[in-house]
Amino acid sequence: MMRKMLSWGVAAVLTVLSIQAKEPVDWVNPFIGTTNFGTTNPGAVTPNGLMSVAPFNVMGSDLNQFDKDSRWWSTPYDNTNSYFTGFSHVNLSGVGCPELGSLLVMATAGKLDVDYRNYGSSYSDEHATPGLYGLTLDKYGIKAEATATTRTGRIRFTFPEGKGNILLNLGEGLTNESGATVRRVSDTEVVGCKLMGTFCYNPQAVFPLYFAMRVDRKPAKQGFWKFQRPKKGVEAEWDVDDAKYKLYPDFGKTISGDDIGVWYTYDTKPGEIIEVSVGVSFVSEENAMLNLNTEQPRDITFDKIYADVRKRWNDDLSRIIVEGGTDDQKTVFYTALYHTLLHPNILQDVDGRYPAMESNAVMSTDGNRYTVFSLWDTYRNLHQLMTLVYPERQLDMVRSMVDMSKEWGWLPKWELFGRETFTMEGDPAIPVIIDTWRKGLTDFDMDAAYAAMKKSATTQGKDNPMRPDNDPYIEKGYIPLGYFAGDNSGDNSVSHALEYYVADNALAWLAEERGEKDFAKELRKRAAGWRNYYSKESGTLRPINADGSFLTPFDPRQGENFEPVPGFHEGSAWNYTFYVPHDIDGLSKVMGGKRQFVDKLQKVFDEGLYDPANEPDIAYPYLFSRFKGEEWRTSKLVGELLAKHFTTKPDGLPGNDDTGTMSAWAVFSMMGLYPDVPGVPEYTLTTPVFDKVTINLGDHPLEISKVSDGKNSIMLDGKPARHRITHSELMQSGRLQFHVNE
Amino acid sequence: MMRKMLSWGVAAVLTVLSIQAKEPVDWVNPFIGTTNFGTTNPGAVTPNGLMSVAPFNVMGSDLNQFDKDSRWWSTPYDNTNSYFTGFSHVNLSGVGCPELGSLLVMATAGKLDVDYRNYGSSYSDEHATPGLYGLTLDKYGIKAEATATTRTGRIRFTFPEGKGNILLNLGEGLTNESGATVRRVSDTEVVGCKLMGTFCYNPQAVFPLYFAMRVDRKPAKQGFWKFQRPKKGVEAEWDVDDAKYKLYPDFGKTISGDDIGVWYTYDTKPGEIIEVSVGVSFVSEENAMLNLNTEQPRDITFDKIYADVRKRWNDDLSRIIVEGGTDDQKTVFYTALYHTLLHPNILQDVDGRYPAMESNAVMSTDGNRYTVFSLWDTYRNLHQLMTLVYPERQLDMVRSMVDMSKEWGWLPKWELFGRETFTMEGDPAIPVIIDTWRKGLTDFDMDAAYAAMKKSATTQGKDNPMRPDNDPYIEKGYIPLGYFAGDNSGDNSVSHALEYYVADNALAWLAEERGEKDFAKELRKRAAGWRNYYSKESGTLRPINADGSFLTPFDPRQGENFEPVPGFHEGSAWNYTFYVPHDIDGLSKVMGGKRQFVDKLQKVFDEGLYDPANEPDIAYPYLFSRFKGEEWRTSKLVGELLAKHFTTKPDGLPGNDDTGTMSAWAVFSMMGLYPDVPGVPEYTLTTPVFDKVTINLGDHPLEISKVSDGKNSIMLDGKPARHRITHSELMQSGRLQFHVNE
Repeated sequence: MMRKMLSWGVAAVLTVLSIQAKEPVDWVNPFIGTTNFGTTNPGAVTPNGLMSVAPFNVMGSDLNQFDKDSRWWSTPYDNTNSYFTGFSHVNLSGVGCPELGSLLVMATAGKLDVDYRNYGSSYSDEHATPGLYGLTLDKYGIKAEATATTRTGRIRFTFPEGKGNILLNLGEGLTNESGATVRRVSDTEVVGCKLMGTFCYNPQAVFPLYFAMRVDRKPAKQGFWKFQRPKKGVEAEWDVDDAKYKLYPDFGKTISGDDIGVWYTYDTKPGEIIEVSVGVSFVSEENAMLNLNTEQPRDITFDKIYADVRKRWNDDLSRIIVEGGTDDQKTVFYTALYHTLLHPNILQDVDGRYPAMESNAVMSTDGNRYTVFSLWDTYRNLHQLMTLVYPERQLDMVRSMVDMSKEWGWLPKWELFGRETFTMEGDPAIPVIIDTWRKGLTDFDMDAAYAAMKKSATTQGKDNPMRPDNDPYIEKGYIPLGYFAGDNSGDNSVSHALEYYVADNALAWLAEERGEKDFAKELRKRAAGWRNYYSKESGTLRPINADGSFLTPFDPRQGENFEPVPGFHEGSAWNYTFYVPHDIDGLSKVMGGKRQFVDKLQKVFDEGLYDPANEPDIAYPYLFSRFKGEEWRTSKLVGELLAKHFTTKPDGLPGNDDTGTMSAWAVFSMMGLYPDVPGVPEYTLTTPVFDKVTINLGDHPLEISKVSDGKNSIMLDGKPARHRITHSELMQSGRLQFHVNE
Repeated sequence: MMRKMLSWGVAAVLTVLSIQAKEPVDWVNPFIGTTNFGTTNPGAVTPNGLMSVAPFNVMGSDLNQFDKDSRWWSTPYDNTNSYFTGFSHVNLSGVGCPELGSLLVMATAGKLDVDYRNYGSSYSDEHATPGLYGLTLDKYGIKAEATATTRTGRIRFTFPEGKGNILLNLGEGLTNESGATVRRVSDTEVVGCKLMGTFCYNPQAVFPLYFAMRVDRKPAKQGFWKFQRPKKGVEAEWDVDDAKYKLYPDFGKTISGDDIGVWYTYDTKPGEIIEVSVGVSFVSEENAMLNLNTEQPRDITFDKIYADVRKRWNDDLSRIIVEGGTDDQKTVFYTALYHTLLHPNILQDVDGRYPAMESNAVMSTDGNRYTVFSLWDTYRNLHQLMTLVYPERQLDMVRSMVDMSKEWGWLPKWELFGRETFTMEGDPAIPVIIDTWRKGLTDFDMDAAYAAMKKSATTQGKDNPMRPDNDPYIEKGYIPLGYFAGDNSGDNSVSHALEYYVADNALAWLAEERGEKDFAKELRKRAAGWRNYYSKESGTLRPINADGSFLTPFDPRQGENFEPVPGFHEGSAWNYTFYVPHDIDGLSKVMGGKRQFVDKLQKVFDEGLYDPANEPDIAYPYLFSRFKGEEWRTSKLVGELLAKHFTTKPDGLPGNDDTGTMSAWAVFSMMGLYPDVPGVPEYTLTTPVFDKVTINLGDHPLEISKVSDGKNSIMLDGKPARHRITHSELMQSGRLQFHVNE
């Protein structure tokens, strides 16, 4: 591996690195989270890059434990699987719904076979590091390595002697959409388009992925394939290709269909290398080619591309330098940080063009337009991490969100390549934008943002796609069972309302700030609406029937392990009851006071009612620190959860990484602070894992350190601090010191 | 209907028309041949136009007698069917294999339904005239009319009040290929591409049809549809659209797949007209749009387009003016002439670009590039008709054929939009080109043509796609059974050889002409090779086994009605035995002399051994005229065959029109002459049906007349003539007079 230490940009890092044996990028293990439903993958990708090139091993063989077609399956790769069928281009990391994972590029040796049930292979020598993934295909003796630029992928295949084949499968992939078209541009290039979408049960959120593919050597032969629609009767008898993969060796123009592909065959010498480059665009085929030609000029080598992406990763990861801690902790930390930098993604092409939100228009930007906003997840901590460590990136992300509202009329909820998928609930863009603003990143169009926030907070009736149950929410202060779904099955009413409370709490601040005092008051009143749901009988939040009575009978444990439960989305009442982060005092009071609150919260952990694998309760451990004398519980629990659920193994994430949200939890927790109220610029502190954490913020490095001197106190810039500090306190001090008794 | 008589180009026509009540175009009945396997259709088309807009009524309902998916079916329309599912754009006329008949445009009223099994309708008020077809859809009360320009179609739908829908179905069609892509260009325009091909059992002869479609009014709503690939297990359960037609109302970019479509919905007032224009190209989507915008500028009306196409048809049909005869005979004649002007078709776009033969290249021409050369059929008479009546068109057709040989290396056999389908047998381009040359149309590259002819005549081994069994043909003078097919099933060895004899007879003349005397001698020897096949025992041509013995047992009637038979293609030994047109004297001799020949040939007619529905024997009736005193048989038989098999009814063609070949037989026969030896510039004469036939050839009109004066003689320019005359005799005289006893 090339190491260009002297060319690094951040001078401060150099000092540290000259001492350390490993650079930050070297600590990353991309296999973490690649089983146990972490749904990360070890593919090659740049920081927040549009392109990722991932190994695809979830179809075609019973040897695989997990198969994309035999269950709900949302990742191109699982570490326990063993049958490789190619590299998928453009992938999601850490999501819970099948999407993308297409443009499958495979190499085989010997006779051409385009059926993935036949052409896949087991593999060995698997290895990955940021920006590079490699393996050897046992069946063919082919070595394959992948790397990436922002918008393109590059694969280097090393063939044995004989016949070598390159396949581009456009029929299969993770996405549940289908249908592609591909056109030969030259002997070594094709362009095309495949439809993607239907993410998370939304059949209409579809979008085209345009691509350009180039092989670096003219093949001996080439062609297309297409699986033939089964015909009936004599037509089937007369058609030699009926219901089979038909090869088209003589036709080289445009082919389209549900299940098509492109093949190249070569006569290969031993060790012969053939490289495949793929560029993508969400604008057009022409732009896919433009991206490819711009980011991979003809003479650029695989090694150069990899050196560049490695440097970019190391630069990004070096924004935080940790010292102390075990090697495993460093691996967990830098891998988690790596995971937080996979989404959102750069959307615009090299010429600045991108698909407008929810329209067919193509727009242009000078800056970075981001996409893939899984906001129900990321509004809790990932954007706070970006704000703290990568503020310029967070600002572009907020600008992108605000631009979406200008283009479409609404802020995003779960935006995916220009489409709103309406996945999960709430109005999470509001706390993200306000949180960012309140932390001093204000160089965006807040007037437009506020208008869009107000629109979703106040629009009633059927015309509000962001808050479909805004009517009862505004009128009653809560959402009764059955309003949205029509019946209790699939009803997530309490979850919806809890999200609106958090959003409206954040928005109240902004309304007040903008002088809209009545609206601010109304919003504050709304944000207190959670009280409607508190049942003294169950001691939890509890769904409310249409007549205002509580749902009865009621089991607050129902909903564990994703079992269906009325009122709550992906969780039990226990996973949601403490999710009133803006009003923990109020919640404590209705529960009977601090003692009762603390005991009940502790019970959640002691009795296995805590779900570390989903978002609603992930800030629970930090709630103890709201109460003087109970802060030790936070540090103890966070330490235990980190140790148990965040490891260096492939199953080292508790569940879906949720586009980096789980990893952001780990990053914050390991550094010693956590933003537990989205929209409120404060952190709850916890004992860091490392002796020293340096966040390199240009002129103002932020230093968090741990001193085991038995003092059990926290010092901010040398002065005693509480376990909860504001963002400005943190930034102004620059030095946070934990004195602990470890 | 508009009649712009004064703008007509041919002055001579005017005189005639001012007397006649009807213009030539008015005699045409496009419903002739639309059942009884004539496979013509009543759609709107220009003379030799690329575009045709045909009613499509061969799918979707058990009400139809004939269904494209339940049998081998090769036409978009059958007159006995009753369930209409749209207009197909670009169609073949009179062929025996399914192809094209796609881009199905339908209108419906009421709720949108994109399943053709539901949206089709019975119809009434069906009417057609050259360039115009119309009907009323019973189910919807929608009136639909279609017209065409060379490369575009125009449909005028008249809706009732309510919801009106326009559908473009890209999933269905006659072709057995599938897969399309379509992209929205504006609120009223889409462009796309659908794959066509697999004509006549050739799975590799595929080609893309590019299209652009425009509606003349912005719809209230629009979208795509796609039939969803069936998923398995839980994936199928979770997908609400699984194995159904999924609608995409919100997505308007690019969609591709096996079975996709485009829909527009409108709120329609009573009698509201919405018009749909479709342009096509075999070069690119851009050129399809260019063709559309050029031939249908925004302000052109349906009526103007129709007036233009009507005029073009009338101009073309007026090249021959017939007088006398019955109305039915005029209808049969002008409809037949109309059918001869449907193929070959203009291939190049308005900018002159066209797809090169058998390559991915795009080329450009200043003249007309023709396509759809069904040469095994058309070499017998259609090209001779073009040479005689439309010489400028025939010259362009020959130039196109020669250019194909320059692009691909071989002359065409059955060329279809730049692909050689290798349908039927022989080397029919040779007699076509030589026939044209010998008739004085010499302004083409004969050097290149001759080189290509020689190449196919002399190339041996596997590298000769035109004459795959050239080795035994050259070595033995005949082709034994089993050489080509490997066994006797599907073996057409005698038919192959008979075609080569005719081609080589023509080529011998050219070789001699070019001074290649040895080659000419060799070719003459080859052309006599038919003698090998003559069996004294059966009195017919007879297949020869690999060991040189005749096939035994042998039934010369086997092969009737398309039943499989060794040695002969689509016919019995009787249908082929007299197909030695260049050596009738020789055949007569081996049969025992004139008497035996005439008796045997008469027996063919008397005993039902003659097949009027396929090409090999269609010149049989003219063979009597080779023998003095037997000419009356020709006139009698031709008259009887015309009366029996060529009528004004939908079943008024004996079988497949074969891109106009059957109709050309009728045209020649009704005019009183027939070119019975392809490649030899001679005609055998027969009593014409009409009192007077005027062929308008610019300065040299050709006049054929019939005088019932009982004289029973033929006069050429006032001098007595034989029953067989040369082309130059005919052209130099300008006046052919039949004195008959009728």
